Amino acid sequence: MSDVYVAGVGMTPFGSSSERTARDLFAQAAAKAFADASVAPDAVEELFYGNYMGEFAETQGHQGPLMAEAAGVSAPATRVESACASSGAAVRYGVNHVRSGQADVVLVGGAERMTNISTAEGTRALSAAADALWEISAGVTFPGAYSLMANSYFEQFGGTREDLAHIAVKNHANAVENDLAQFQRAIDVEDVLTAPDISSPFGLYDCSPMSDGASAAVLVSEAFAERAGLDPSVAITGVGQGSDSLALQDRDSISETPAAVEAGRKAYEDAGIGPEDVDVAEVHDCFTIAEVIALESLGFYEPGEAISAARHGETTIDGELPVNLSGGLKAKGHPVGATGGAQISELTKLLRGDHVNSDAVEDATVGLTHNAGGTVASCVVHVLEVRE
Amino acid sequence: MSDVYVAGVGMTPFGSSSERTARDLFAQAAAKAFADASVAPDAVEELFYGNYMGEFAETQGHQGPLMAEAAGVSAPATRVESACASSGAAVRYGVNHVRSGQADVVLVGGAERMTNISTAEGTRALSAAADALWEISAGVTFPGAYSLMANSYFEQFGGTREDLAHIAVKNHANAVENDLAQFQRAIDVEDVLTAPDISSPFGLYDCSPMSDGASAAVLVSEAFAERAGLDPSVAITGVGQGSDSLALQDRDSISETPAAVEAGRKAYEDAGIGPEDVDVAEVHDCFTIAEVIALESLGFYEPGEAISAARHGETTIDGELPVNLSGGLKAKGHPVGATGGAQISELTKLLRGDHVNSDAVEDATVGLTHNAGGTVASCVVHVLEVRE
Repeated sequence: MSDVYVAGVGMTPFGSSSERTARDLFAQAAAKAFADASVAPDAVEELFYGNYMGEFAETQGHQGPLMAEAAGVSAPATRVESACASSGAAVRYGVNHVRSGQADVVLVGGAERMTNISTAEGTRALSAAADALWEISAGVTFPGAYSLMANSYFEQFGGTREDLAHIAVKNHANAVENDLAQFQRAIDVEDVLTAPDISSPFGLYDCSPMSDGASAAVLVSEAFAERAGLDPSVAITGVGQGSDSLALQDRDSISETPAAVEAGRKAYEDAGIGPEDVDVAEVHDCFTIAEVIALESLGFYEPGEAISAARHGETTIDGELPVNLSGGLKAKGHPVGATGGAQISELTKLLRGDHVNSDAVEDATVGLTHNAGGTVASCVVHVLEVRE
Repeated sequence: MSDVYVAGVGMTPFGSSSERTARDLFAQAAAKAFADASVAPDAVEELFYGNYMGEFAETQGHQGPLMAEAAGVSAPATRVESACASSGAAVRYGVNHVRSGQADVVLVGGAERMTNISTAEGTRALSAAADALWEISAGVTFPGAYSLMANSYFEQFGGTREDLAHIAVKNHANAVENDLAQFQRAIDVEDVLTAPDISSPFGLYDCSPMSDGASAAVLVSEAFAERAGLDPSVAITGVGQGSDSLALQDRDSISETPAAVEAGRKAYEDAGIGPEDVDVAEVHDCFTIAEVIALESLGFYEPGEAISAARHGETTIDGELPVNLSGGLKAKGHPVGATGGAQISELTKLLRGDHVNSDAVEDATVGLTHNAGGTVASCVVHVLEVRE
């Protein structure tokens, strides 16, 4: 199977754009991706589009054809939904579609509108990514679910709120110069520890925000790139997806995420690399603890070891493995259906050298994205590599 | 690319099962498909699952991993949503996944729960498959949208309510002996014409019902079938998908459905056949007019010619091209996210000779399914062939 190249990427600024519909947001992201790729919309042979909560936020399902139209694309278009991993799953489908020779050019990405509804409505919408019968009906929402995971982690491996605080501080620091990020503002550990409580051990800064936004990428075959005279430098060389039981209660351990282990294993095998080859990663830090468990699931750290990675500067911008140089979900923002595509967008720019934080990883040739749905009941991992 | 075989199929009975969750329904359909296939759940390498309105009916998104668990499958699992074409799109993704060598065994299908909520809530949920800004906000619901299409068709090509009535009568007749069908009851033209008005020209019997139900199919590669000693006789030899603008107002004509034309064209080309080769078809008759436009879009009739097909007995059980021998959406029922998979299930059984109506098509070797989303803003067509 040939490599699949990222010909172009685009994102809206993430944040509150409550007056703009999801279709507006996706149209903007797609237009940026087409311009970046020097590919016209009419070259697209299929759209794989991620969206999670359009039914709740805009009473709008069936967004595949709607978003194709918004992007100026006349091609089969389908929505892929896997909670907060929706556009990660959409990217994977797109990669597989090109790899298998079924298309030379696909558009992938996603959008979400979240700030046009109340926080209560948004919380209800997000909780539908958990098990309606056994979790939602018991009052579990995601801050609660992830705090259970954090407390379980602390109990099993140790760790403190201060360890977690360093992750929020790091991700905010990374976003300060990122014009696309929702929070372009540095915070310190004291800010995190004194922020309003959300769900113990989490305070406000341990949690990613409600966001509006969209992301898109134009993926092309090697043959098309040559034919069209494109010279894309980044390829998606590995894909992997994993699933787990939807409800936390059905798992052997809630301080580990086997769906991410499986997604990572497949993506590494697919790319022919291992975690030691990865130079830079964007992982799904919907809550601070999620970054810790992601790094362990992906084999960057042994279980119990990643809790202090940010505190020790190992994952900071000048660390050995910079994580979430975009600002992550915490500071870049988390319009859930757009997040997987945004990781691809930001990582591609980091590897190409045209991201505001590219200087920190100027020799980087291998990057990884980790996009999770719910409490990692679904997970998609991609490996991106610089191709000369 | 090798053929993809339908190793086994399963459906719940369609109808009102309001006390059973979608997960219960899908578990039952999947268990039937595994038993029919003589394939164990642990052989499945990926689940492609269609669902449309889970957020509205059960406040349940993220159904991919949930349904994998319900089916006893440990594999990547993603929900595919394209309104009433959701499981048609899921089947297509599954076929492509096997064809391209990415898996030897996949589970495809879908589920919907609709009767546990009120008709008003159900109508609101269904309308989210139309354009929220330009159709829903103007008061359009699907009976209204399709009646606009019917009136436009009548104006352009002619036709009467009585022509449409023959379609409802035919599909009810086909379902009388089908234990899985929601309405196992014959009706006559008089019943249709005197039924309560819904939206002119439609009366009650022109419209498919609210239904609960699930469908599943086990798709396998030829290599796996040989290795496992399976002897499946039906292969999916053609797939096609098309999209159109979501809102009716953005189309050149609302009495034609170019997304279906495109999906059909691709599926025929893929299978290396033409409409003249098709012996039996299951088409998306959400409203009686939809069957007419489907038959024209698929090339079985010229535009304006299919309106009298049922009346003339051409598409009845003993006609030249029997259409909707299952009873169609009208009489078999229409749990929207399950419908595309149910078409595959019923057509497979028709072609294998183990459907209650198989005797009517005992020499049939080629069948076609047509599954549409919204007012055919999305459409998926599959060609199934008997392989000796």
